[in-house]
Amino acid sequence: MQSVVNSESPSMAQNFDWLRRGVAEIFPQPSDADSETESLEKRLANANHPLRIKLGIDPTGADIHLGHSIPVRKLRAFQDAGHTAVLIIGDFTARIGDPTGKSEVRRQLTEAEVAHNAQTYLDQVRPILDFDTPGRLEVRYNSEWLSRLDLGKTLELLSTMTVGQMLAKEGFAERYKKENPIFLHEFLYPLMQGFDSVAVEADVELGGTDQKFNIAVGRDLQRHFGLKPQFGLLLPILIGTDGVQKMSKSLGNYVGLSEHPAQKYQKLQGVPDNLLAQYFELLTDLPLDTLPENPRDRQKLLAWEIVRQYHGEAAANEAQKAAESGGEKGELPEFSLESISQFPVKLSYLLGASGLCKSGGEGKRKIQEGGVRLDGTKVNDPDTAFQQASDLDGKVLQVGKNKFVRLVL
Amino acid sequence: MQSVVNSESPSMAQNFDWLRRGVAEIFPQPSDADSETESLEKRLANANHPLRIKLGIDPTGADIHLGHSIPVRKLRAFQDAGHTAVLIIGDFTARIGDPTGKSEVRRQLTEAEVAHNAQTYLDQVRPILDFDTPGRLEVRYNSEWLSRLDLGKTLELLSTMTVGQMLAKEGFAERYKKENPIFLHEFLYPLMQGFDSVAVEADVELGGTDQKFNIAVGRDLQRHFGLKPQFGLLLPILIGTDGVQKMSKSLGNYVGLSEHPAQKYQKLQGVPDNLLAQYFELLTDLPLDTLPENPRDRQKLLAWEIVRQYHGEAAANEAQKAAESGGEKGELPEFSLESISQFPVKLSYLLGASGLCKSGGEGKRKIQEGGVRLDGTKVNDPDTAFQQASDLDGKVLQVGKNKFVRLVL
Repeated sequence: MQSVVNSESPSMAQNFDWLRRGVAEIFPQPSDADSETESLEKRLANANHPLRIKLGIDPTGADIHLGHSIPVRKLRAFQDAGHTAVLIIGDFTARIGDPTGKSEVRRQLTEAEVAHNAQTYLDQVRPILDFDTPGRLEVRYNSEWLSRLDLGKTLELLSTMTVGQMLAKEGFAERYKKENPIFLHEFLYPLMQGFDSVAVEADVELGGTDQKFNIAVGRDLQRHFGLKPQFGLLLPILIGTDGVQKMSKSLGNYVGLSEHPAQKYQKLQGVPDNLLAQYFELLTDLPLDTLPENPRDRQKLLAWEIVRQYHGEAAANEAQKAAESGGEKGELPEFSLESISQFPVKLSYLLGASGLCKSGGEGKRKIQEGGVRLDGTKVNDPDTAFQQASDLDGKVLQVGKNKFVRLVL
Repeated sequence: MQSVVNSESPSMAQNFDWLRRGVAEIFPQPSDADSETESLEKRLANANHPLRIKLGIDPTGADIHLGHSIPVRKLRAFQDAGHTAVLIIGDFTARIGDPTGKSEVRRQLTEAEVAHNAQTYLDQVRPILDFDTPGRLEVRYNSEWLSRLDLGKTLELLSTMTVGQMLAKEGFAERYKKENPIFLHEFLYPLMQGFDSVAVEADVELGGTDQKFNIAVGRDLQRHFGLKPQFGLLLPILIGTDGVQKMSKSLGNYVGLSEHPAQKYQKLQGVPDNLLAQYFELLTDLPLDTLPENPRDRQKLLAWEIVRQYHGEAAANEAQKAAESGGEKGELPEFSLESISQFPVKLSYLLGASGLCKSGGEGKRKIQEGGVRLDGTKVNDPDTAFQQASDLDGKVLQVGKNKFVRLVL
């Protein structure tokens, strides 16, 4: 297809509602002062080949939630418009960890851990992204280029920015003012993320609103290395189901992508009314002007639609039915902890006893393979044990994607 | 030889006058608060193998002067005490140049230019250092380790320091306060110099008083990598023959190591009285308590002694005799510019005409080889030409180390 430059052309009449939906900011925006800058809409309309849409993934944790799904959903929208999603697994930094050794969050991961986390991530976003259409998805590991970066090139990256520019970054500014230590290597991370954009020749980078600085650094580096600078497309940070704080696993206000349909439904049907509009806008493709009038109906539609996205219509119907008849706990099969004769009990034994696995031995193996979750949290230690039945009461034990039981007393 | 730890032992009675002479500061110094720290004297006295004494050399320029000779002379004193001089040629940074491309001083040099500058440096310090006794001199190029430094290791180096610590460094502090840009890569240079100390396992690093910060960074990095931290030995910055500003080629107040004996003598016999004590202390080994009473005699002794160091006694006597009989200009052979029939004249032609070279062709070749100097400054362009005789009048033209003429009208 020939590129069309005239802004009056039919291709510019293209509908870009999919692009703008739920977006906090797209930059740069063409302004009167800067007539050279084209808009992202214009670049998309005139593209005669697929654009490359970058999203960086931190493979330090395995489980992701609906908040994480927002840029992935936007990535899918770009795929559907014919563009290429470039998912960048940040394995290089994960392998290094925090060089000061002070951060537990940034502990050094093994190659196997990184590979496992990356695979778990891909499994979880599989329902969102188009993995099948040729040319629509590229998965890259940034160690491919960062592990080959020598000191000369690193000096060149660093030389593109001043201390003043870096200290103006949100986060650094406050810490510097409060005289909290900022270690020098922290200045390299935005440049490494920016260099990822150089390496994959990104046309657009997606990220949360907290990523504006880093995406702008990517633009500068692309310009420095003679490339056309990428657009930044910023998406809001999702408020959790408590309606107050940002969705976060540690705050317990999250809906995990690997949770059981009934758990998802149950959490989502309780989303506060003032969040519903944002949830619909960011987490569904439903037209926003034809939503039900009644708040309760809106909650039900939201819960149903999101379960449908990840598990299909039948599962959504079933989850809805269970929630309406069975009350709070949904329709998970239950396993009575009273049948366990002795505590403490090993989780591997429970897996066999509950029928989720054929035996305690298989249970142990499944834990080692990273396939076992308790209330959505992956269990890593095959020797995990519990002191008493009350520690487990009400929790959901899960093997793989489809086998669940609720443990009850 | 067995190490002796008792501070009352005979070896501690060793005379360390050679160590302390002309030194501005040795650090760390043992203090009452920190009884763990041993003194450099104690370390030297107890050493049962040669210590490694580091001096870093910047190979961006070719010509060095008496100011540069001060740490080299101290290095020789360590050699004479049985230790190993480790001269580090900073070829890595010279090859990279200034990555911002803004600094003319820090332009990128070719491998050949660096090799040439390093060789010229070694030629000039040959009269000072012990090149011959086995194990007394190690010449290392820091590209050996810096070109192999990957991003992971670079992050580790950077993580050992905070932004606040780096901005406290002299130079950075003022620039940051004045809001003059400090580029991020500038933070890496002290760490690279420090990593040199790790790589060569330096026990002592020599430098001017302006090097205290960088040498301290080397100590921190050595500790980080599990080595015993080096001592820093700081030497004063030499005041030039004008008695006012620090010795510098661009200020014209210098005595170059490759200058003709007569030129050296002439410049040094005019050193102001208030500088004589420092010059004797820093540039000679003469006992300071037996110097002549008369200032003029002191000037003559200084000039004679320094010429002797670089050219031997006969040359020193000759330079002195010439200065006393022949007045200001010394005893250089002269070449009359009046014998040149046509201006502009090429320098290569002059080299042939003056008899310094066999022909203009040989002259051109000598320039290309870097063997030609005009008034002590190396000529790089073989097509260098001069418009009129007055541009050359009084200047000294030199080929190699021993052939000089003074051009006169």
